[in-house]
Amino acid sequence: MIKAGIIGATGYTGVELMRLLATRQDVRVDVITSRELAGTPVADVFPNLRGYLDVVFTEPDTEILAACDVVFYATPHTVAMNTAAELLSRGVRVIDLSADFRLKDQSVWESWYKTAHTAPELIEQAVYGLPEVNRDDITTAKLIAVPGCYPTAVQLGFLPLLEAGLVDSSQLIADCKSGVSGAGKKAAVGSLLCEAGESMKAYGVAGHRHLPEISQGLTRFGNKAVGLTFIPHLTPMIRGIHATLYANPVAEVNQEQLQALFESRYADSPFVDVLPAGSEPATRNVRGSNKCQIAVHYLPESQKIVVLSVIDNLVKGASGQAVQNMNLMFGLTETAGLDVVALLP
Amino acid sequence: MIKAGIIGATGYTGVELMRLLATRQDVRVDVITSRELAGTPVADVFPNLRGYLDVVFTEPDTEILAACDVVFYATPHTVAMNTAAELLSRGVRVIDLSADFRLKDQSVWESWYKTAHTAPELIEQAVYGLPEVNRDDITTAKLIAVPGCYPTAVQLGFLPLLEAGLVDSSQLIADCKSGVSGAGKKAAVGSLLCEAGESMKAYGVAGHRHLPEISQGLTRFGNKAVGLTFIPHLTPMIRGIHATLYANPVAEVNQEQLQALFESRYADSPFVDVLPAGSEPATRNVRGSNKCQIAVHYLPESQKIVVLSVIDNLVKGASGQAVQNMNLMFGLTETAGLDVVALLP
Amino acid sequence: MIKAGIIGATGYTGVELMRLLATRQDVRVDVITSRELAGTPVADVFPNLRGYLDVVFTEPDTEILAACDVVFYATPHTVAMNTAAELLSRGVRVIDLSADFRLKDQSVWESWYKTAHTAPELIEQAVYGLPEVNRDDITTAKLIAVPGCYPTAVQLGFLPLLEAGLVDSSQLIADCKSGVSGAGKKAAVGSLLCEAGESMKAYGVAGHRHLPEISQGLTRFGNKAVGLTFIPHLTPMIRGIHATLYANPVAEVNQEQLQALFESRYADSPFVDVLPAGSEPATRNVRGSNKCQIAVHYLPESQKIVVLSVIDNLVKGASGQAVQNMNLMFGLTETAGLDVVALLP
Amino acid sequence: MIKAGIIGATGYTGVELMRLLATRQDVRVDVITSRELAGTPVADVFPNLRGYLDVVFTEPDTEILAACDVVFYATPHTVAMNTAAELLSRGVRVIDLSADFRLKDQSVWESWYKTAHTAPELIEQAVYGLPEVNRDDITTAKLIAVPGCYPTAVQLGFLPLLEAGLVDSSQLIADCKSGVSGAGKKAAVGSLLCEAGESMKAYGVAGHRHLPEISQGLTRFGNKAVGLTFIPHLTPMIRGIHATLYANPVAEVNQEQLQALFESRYADSPFVDVLPAGSEPATRNVRGSNKCQIAVHYLPESQKIVVLSVIDNLVKGASGQAVQNMNLMFGLTETAGLDVVALLP
Repeated sequence: MIKAGIIGATGYTGVELMRLLATRQDVRVDVITSRELAGTPVADVFPNLRGYLDVVFTEPDTEILAACDVVFYATPHTVAMNTAAELLSRGVRVIDLSADFRLKDQSVWESWYKTAHTAPELIEQAVYGLPEVNRDDITTAKLIAVPGCYPTAVQLGFLPLLEAGLVDSSQLIADCKSGVSGAGKKAAVGSLLCEAGESMKAYGVAGHRHLPEISQGLTRFGNKAVGLTFIPHLTPMIRGIHATLYANPVAEVNQEQLQALFESRYADSPFVDVLPAGSEPATRNVRGSNKCQIAVHYLPESQKIVVLSVIDNLVKGASGQAVQNMNLMFGLTETAGLDVVALLP
Repeated sequence: MIKAGIIGATGYTGVELMRLLATRQDVRVDVITSRELAGTPVADVFPNLRGYLDVVFTEPDTEILAACDVVFYATPHTVAMNTAAELLSRGVRVIDLSADFRLKDQSVWESWYKTAHTAPELIEQAVYGLPEVNRDDITTAKLIAVPGCYPTAVQLGFLPLLEAGLVDSSQLIADCKSGVSGAGKKAAVGSLLCEAGESMKAYGVAGHRHLPEISQGLTRFGNKAVGLTFIPHLTPMIRGIHATLYANPVAEVNQEQLQALFESRYADSPFVDVLPAGSEPATRNVRGSNKCQIAVHYLPESQKIVVLSVIDNLVKGASGQAVQNMNLMFGLTETAGLDVVALLP
Repeated sequence: MIKAGIIGATGYTGVELMRLLATRQDVRVDVITSRELAGTPVADVFPNLRGYLDVVFTEPDTEILAACDVVFYATPHTVAMNTAAELLSRGVRVIDLSADFRLKDQSVWESWYKTAHTAPELIEQAVYGLPEVNRDDITTAKLIAVPGCYPTAVQLGFLPLLEAGLVDSSQLIADCKSGVSGAGKKAAVGSLLCEAGESMKAYGVAGHRHLPEISQGLTRFGNKAVGLTFIPHLTPMIRGIHATLYANPVAEVNQEQLQALFESRYADSPFVDVLPAGSEPATRNVRGSNKCQIAVHYLPESQKIVVLSVIDNLVKGASGQAVQNMNLMFGLTETAGLDVVALLP
Repeated sequence: MIKAGIIGATGYTGVELMRLLATRQDVRVDVITSRELAGTPVADVFPNLRGYLDVVFTEPDTEILAACDVVFYATPHTVAMNTAAELLSRGVRVIDLSADFRLKDQSVWESWYKTAHTAPELIEQAVYGLPEVNRDDITTAKLIAVPGCYPTAVQLGFLPLLEAGLVDSSQLIADCKSGVSGAGKKAAVGSLLCEAGESMKAYGVAGHRHLPEISQGLTRFGNKAVGLTFIPHLTPMIRGIHATLYANPVAEVNQEQLQALFESRYADSPFVDVLPAGSEPATRNVRGSNKCQIAVHYLPESQKIVVLSVIDNLVKGASGQAVQNMNLMFGLTETAGLDVVALLP
């Protein structure tokens, strides 16, 4: 029985982690911390957990957390970097859903997050938790940086093309659409139903924090610098990311070749589902599931490769991927607890 | 291993049944029929099932269905009454999600459904599949009439009050709000996003087919005639039913007493969750789950009892309840395969 | 040219007022105040007003406001009661969209709003701005208390029945469904798209501030005490209120009689549209318009009268009604600037 | 008084036309045809028009239509091309909202619409009704082909860049997001709230009928061939198009220059609103209005020009633009009847 703790489980990635862990027989959620909600039963805040998780929010306490086998950080950035070292030193495996350890270049991190990094020695140690790329490293990792939601959808879409050297890496475009849950549960005017509902808009055009994370990954895949234009859009729905990716082939390509490339690349990845040629994935087909559904299209008229990649931002884009990492770290089946069929409609 | 068949699994109750059965170890979905989609892989129509259910739609064929242990009808009304007898005679247990066997009074059925009932001999035999009322009968049943979605939410809300004889059964009001999936997957103008979205309206005010079903149940609970006003409303969301129930107490009551009554009545019902006094349930807290969450309020000012009852119309209001019935019929744990935490947000 | 000022126009009733006034030829919005946004062009905050309203938010300043012919308060409660007297004394007509002057009984107001009323002398003077009831008084009023959104929909629905003495006023039920804009533009977790979207829930079951306002009106209509059960529900849409009203007739009634009663009562009310017998109004049919669409149903089976009443909570339930009052106060056509066809779909 | 007729006004562009025309003093809608609804009052089908438009649907009748000054076709394609000639010959001005006369190359039209064009002689005569490009020609036109919704948003976004020769016209990308009303009011499974709601998907990736229309326009603007990748997406909202446009500059550019270019190009276009530098337009800011709001961004890092262009697909993308054309054809103020502030929220 794996003893798990969750720090800061008051938001959407927190409740999603609890949903995925609450019914497992091989994991027990022992500790759920929240400064503001200490003393409150978790199921009072999240009534969907009534009857499934009989735990009370507690103040974060290192001694108690240190008794866990694994601790998840479902916190805003800068929390994990300040406390993870202590837990690691006491043998706890740490899975950080925040951005603290995603960027390998400390100065880049500091420029995007506008603060000094307080645990630079852990940056190197942290393994970027995208199993489709780093499965082996994850198996032996002590500290995981769970990828961001956009970075997951975009990297999985470009990965086969860049690894194969098939596209001009200097002219990549990622036009991404996210449900509002990506903005979290904090009370913000822009996330109100009356502001975000029945409307579509781009945001972060001048620069979004996921840009350097995506660029870092894409650079690694192709082993060469990338030029990426990344435009996220706020979409009037709760869950889901749809990434529409554009790339220019560097040599002649065709649909069959691209289709085979994607299918082959992901043959051993249980959570990446390459759809048949001609498909147009919908975010609802992965709602609540850890799947990434991908379709690759070659448009001969304009000689563009277009990849459509969809995930549930709270599952494969956050908590499901965190659990997938946990499974690998503890030698469990990669899909344990994640064989969840998407909720449709 | 229970071998299951599903007839007419092209709509929302069908795909929901498949979602709930696809990952079970003790049930195997062998046959899924659809005249119009025969030959098409189920996962082509419902991409959420890709990788979970490798079955092809087939023409309904009695020989093949008769080899199943249980057959679900996820069909429009009048299909089950024409073919269930044959399956029953060959030892197949039948769980009908349609309305064919819900009403015990054949003439009432015929007046609401505007056609002759072709299997009146099965009406008596059919067990009304509301386990919170009929658990024992279900255990030995061969033919189950799965309750409608509104009837489930309304009956579970009024049940303790009527059984206890606490309210005036001649003055019951059920103001109900349903998500659009209750209207099914058929192409109908009224169910378009641009028609049903961003709007609220009542419908069926002059009479809705669920009225006689609810009245039949309520009459049985209190063993006396009921006067029920039932007004359903179309609500701009996909899933969920919210029933707001009004009743006049026949003697002095108080909140504590009502709370205790409800908690006691449902103490052994794993899928009815009586919320603490003062609660206001939300349909999202049961989305995708088989739970019915209920709150009972006494309003001293107006001397009204108000019950708030929420379900997911496709789960406890249809396919989840069907599976719950199957579990009981086959001697399995009532909650098998249904311990699903609701998807929130 | 009427010179108008708006105090606190940073929320949804504020922007709606500006939408309705911006294109008028006979009214000029001179002053729009907001402490927090002083100095910001209104159209920067509400880009729908770009090109239509070239005004900058300013600090509230009595001298400037006193130069207006009419001042609207689009503020939270307690603002108007503290400053309206000064404006009134200087000859400005005041239209208060908040709750400060809606209740005639000061002690009731104070018990619901948990604070002392600071302008009790104005309570008597204030005219309750429901033109369908008080048209003449409004014409000569200096201070208008614009009705709340629920109170508008509910009162217009019950009005003919109570005036005619047709129903038992001790057993009235108002089951109301509101879009989320009723909660305003403030950043609150419960109004987030991810919280209020795709869900239905009751709220304020134990008591909502609109209850005494509705009861006060209904009591006046029938000239006798009322017993009202009022349950509001949060509905996953932006605009709209749907009131479903239940009443017991005190004598024999029929549909024709009720239909004629409603049509006759509202024959001279340009914004109350009595639908043909058998109709089921939808909130979308009045979105953006000042209309209240009403259908009255008699259900012979259960001997209940059911009234369905829909409005746009931000128009007839707030800013449109405010403008309707202004028109009457200044001797303009009642419908001036309000002949807006609802936006459908 | 202009006498107007509308053919086929049973869909969303039809009701939107009626909304925009019903309250005008200078236009009277005399004839509204529909074969299937002949005899039904328009306001029975569209209750938002109750009290504003007292007209009954009639069978299309050439004699009656010929008495109009202007006839709008709000029909599926192939209707206008079969009957417009007769109306034109009798002096009626024709404004076709369908696709029949949008493409100047008959063979291209026939290959995309899979049928022979039956009025090739009118193709040349038809003026493409994008006033920001063709204002003068529209003024004297007899037959207008109203642009499609995507083509309007995309062309207005690329227009200044192509006219100025600033971008590589062979590498244009238009990633477009549309509300579901773009699919019309026909009963189609894909447009159901339960299918299109809470989901995002691309469609028509292999080719969408608006592609040749857009390409034709862009080619004309820059007077050279264009290579365009156009990916439309179905977005879970009722109204609105958001076009995200990507282009590569052919020389050094900067934000100030681009901003000035756009502002200057549209200085005389009342319905194109160039937002300040750094803006991110939202579709809700133009809901119900005829405005196109545009922001141009230069991203120095990736050397891309990104244009964000939003319209209401039913107004500037269809019926509003049709009215704008009518105004110009009849020598009225271009903005007559279109000075409608968008409905926000």
